[in-house]
Amino acid sequence: MTQKQRSHSKLLFTPGPLNTQRAVRDAMLVDMGSRDEVFIKVVAQVRAKLLKLVDKENSAGFSVVPMQGSGTFAVESAISSLIPKHAKILVLINGAYGERIFTMAQKMGREVAAIRSSETAPISAEGLRQYLNTCPEVEFVVLVHCETTTGVINPLEEVAKVVSEAGRSLVVDAMSSFGGVEIDLNQCPVDVLIASSNKCLEGVPGLGFVIAKLDLLERSKGNCASMSLDLHDQWNGLEMAGQFRFTPPTHAILALNAALDLLENEGGVTARNLRYRANHKVLMAGMKSLGFKPVVAAKFQSPIISTFYIPEDPKFDFNEFYQLLADQGLVIYPGKLSLTECFRVGSIGDLRSVDLEILLEAMGCVLKSMGVALGGKK
Amino acid sequence: MTQKQRSHSKLLFTPGPLNTQRAVRDAMLVDMGSRDEVFIKVVAQVRAKLLKLVDKENSAGFSVVPMQGSGTFAVESAISSLIPKHAKILVLINGAYGERIFTMAQKMGREVAAIRSSETAPISAEGLRQYLNTCPEVEFVVLVHCETTTGVINPLEEVAKVVSEAGRSLVVDAMSSFGGVEIDLNQCPVDVLIASSNKCLEGVPGLGFVIAKLDLLERSKGNCASMSLDLHDQWNGLEMAGQFRFTPPTHAILALNAALDLLENEGGVTARNLRYRANHKVLMAGMKSLGFKPVVAAKFQSPIISTFYIPEDPKFDFNEFYQLLADQGLVIYPGKLSLTECFRVGSIGDLRSVDLEILLEAMGCVLKSMGVALGGKK
Repeated sequence: MTQKQRSHSKLLFTPGPLNTQRAVRDAMLVDMGSRDEVFIKVVAQVRAKLLKLVDKENSAGFSVVPMQGSGTFAVESAISSLIPKHAKILVLINGAYGERIFTMAQKMGREVAAIRSSETAPISAEGLRQYLNTCPEVEFVVLVHCETTTGVINPLEEVAKVVSEAGRSLVVDAMSSFGGVEIDLNQCPVDVLIASSNKCLEGVPGLGFVIAKLDLLERSKGNCASMSLDLHDQWNGLEMAGQFRFTPPTHAILALNAALDLLENEGGVTARNLRYRANHKVLMAGMKSLGFKPVVAAKFQSPIISTFYIPEDPKFDFNEFYQLLADQGLVIYPGKLSLTECFRVGSIGDLRSVDLEILLEAMGCVLKSMGVALGGKK
Repeated sequence: MTQKQRSHSKLLFTPGPLNTQRAVRDAMLVDMGSRDEVFIKVVAQVRAKLLKLVDKENSAGFSVVPMQGSGTFAVESAISSLIPKHAKILVLINGAYGERIFTMAQKMGREVAAIRSSETAPISAEGLRQYLNTCPEVEFVVLVHCETTTGVINPLEEVAKVVSEAGRSLVVDAMSSFGGVEIDLNQCPVDVLIASSNKCLEGVPGLGFVIAKLDLLERSKGNCASMSLDLHDQWNGLEMAGQFRFTPPTHAILALNAALDLLENEGGVTARNLRYRANHKVLMAGMKSLGFKPVVAAKFQSPIISTFYIPEDPKFDFNEFYQLLADQGLVIYPGKLSLTECFRVGSIGDLRSVDLEILLEAMGCVLKSMGVALGGKK
């Protein structure tokens, strides 16, 4: 079955929005009243299912607060609402998403520091330990779990241990890992976990969510200067009436509810991680065969998205390469690294190994038609 | 055809989310890459179609900036970005949505005043004129066009004339009127117009938009303390690359694009307004027959949503009334007035007179089953 037969959708090898299963999109064929009992039940189900993915027994003292908008809206909602106005924030930065959180905190007038490190390697937990020893005024540490800039996966467990031992709080942007990489809040001392519906959960875009410690939520009243992004008020509305304060994206939430069922049917996060790993393995082997060089060392690379150098051959033009693939219904992703010319290929969403094989074969043909020889083995 | 045969959706007599046409929901069956050329074209089309509804020749110097989230997100984005930090704001309040804008501006630390008037009557343009005469420091006036709290329609043209003559700027929340009531920016001096996809445009929720004077957008850099809601940056990203800065709700935007075509096919805003008026006429006549009393005088009432007093008969329990209708797939809406006990019935969305007749007949049966006699004529 080709991508066109499947759904009139292209195959999306991107960090999201991604290919979703037909059942996810079909769930959007119903119009629901946002204050009707049936929809209120759906919201409760979605919150419970999301929590179960990272806190099986609902024993770790967390609450799930969905927030409409993109993932960045959910991140801003968490940072502006859950971190007290005068608390010092430290952002661990090894890519564009960490940098974005730093800028966001500055823009809202917060006191914020950063540890910047190489985009092609994980954050150092040991470096963080030393920093926190010398900076007792830092109260909150912010980590991006999987830096979508490169696909580097950061050492969540080690960072969480360091932050916890230093008596500080940890906020984790798990946007592109949640649902695709195991996270257990009972084992890993995280205070706030943020993600969205349209990445490894394989829902559609339009909704993010924050999983936060109840005591942080309880203490967060009045922190946020934005009405729309006030996570305390959003949580309060959900707890009091089961409803969003402002019109929720009903169709996107119905889609997420269906997507969460499909995730469970697939065998949960463990099974999905295996599928993504299989996709990633096919991708890396194929790209090597074609002669593309990865930016990140294999040991640091997540199975979510991978970054490759733009070949030096002057006949290789990325825009042409992109367009010739897109014309065949295959969408890859431009780069976002600050230092090097590169492009990205995602291996998440409703994709299987065969889809990566289709992409790799098409890439081979496109390179040939462009007259580019990368010296990969045939 | 009953509501169940139509789409497995209930009939929604609410201010939104509403019933959409099947073609609108079908448009969401495609997954698109948000940075792919095809989607960039869709975004450009949506922006152009929205502008054409209020500025036929694109001659009034406006730009359309879509913003993900609910309508309130778009309102906050406009207020926080387009109004300079130290400019004094005056909000005209005759309902909950005006009150929300006042609270929102306070929360973001703006200097804001209000003229509060009865919830059951329109804002007085003459009162505004006198206020502005005595308060030269007010720079921006904010008006809610149709107050969804009651369905009262405010005198946009008169208010715009007063604001313009006084040399101030006017921001209009046209959330529940845009697409259902004619607005001509060439005739009516408005600086900022805000609405969303899921009301009279009959798209799905998840997207708002701001139609703003180009010179205001150009002068708005750095006003907004929120990264997510920064309308200047959002506009800049759209103008530079045709893209949203952060993941857009691709499916909701595809739905809006389809909904805008359906609006044009229907005969534009004029034809849609006539359909809503016909729905409203059937509703008001039927409610009168049943013995319900409207809260708002007919001359002040929009055809969008109508408010009725909760009957005094102690056998009338609104929750029971609501639920018995919902069980038949008919969703009405609770009240939001601060002063009186009431409920609301919407006449917008993919509804025709026959749908209102179905509702009215069901209401009659439910009243009978509850043993409520309202003294309406049979």
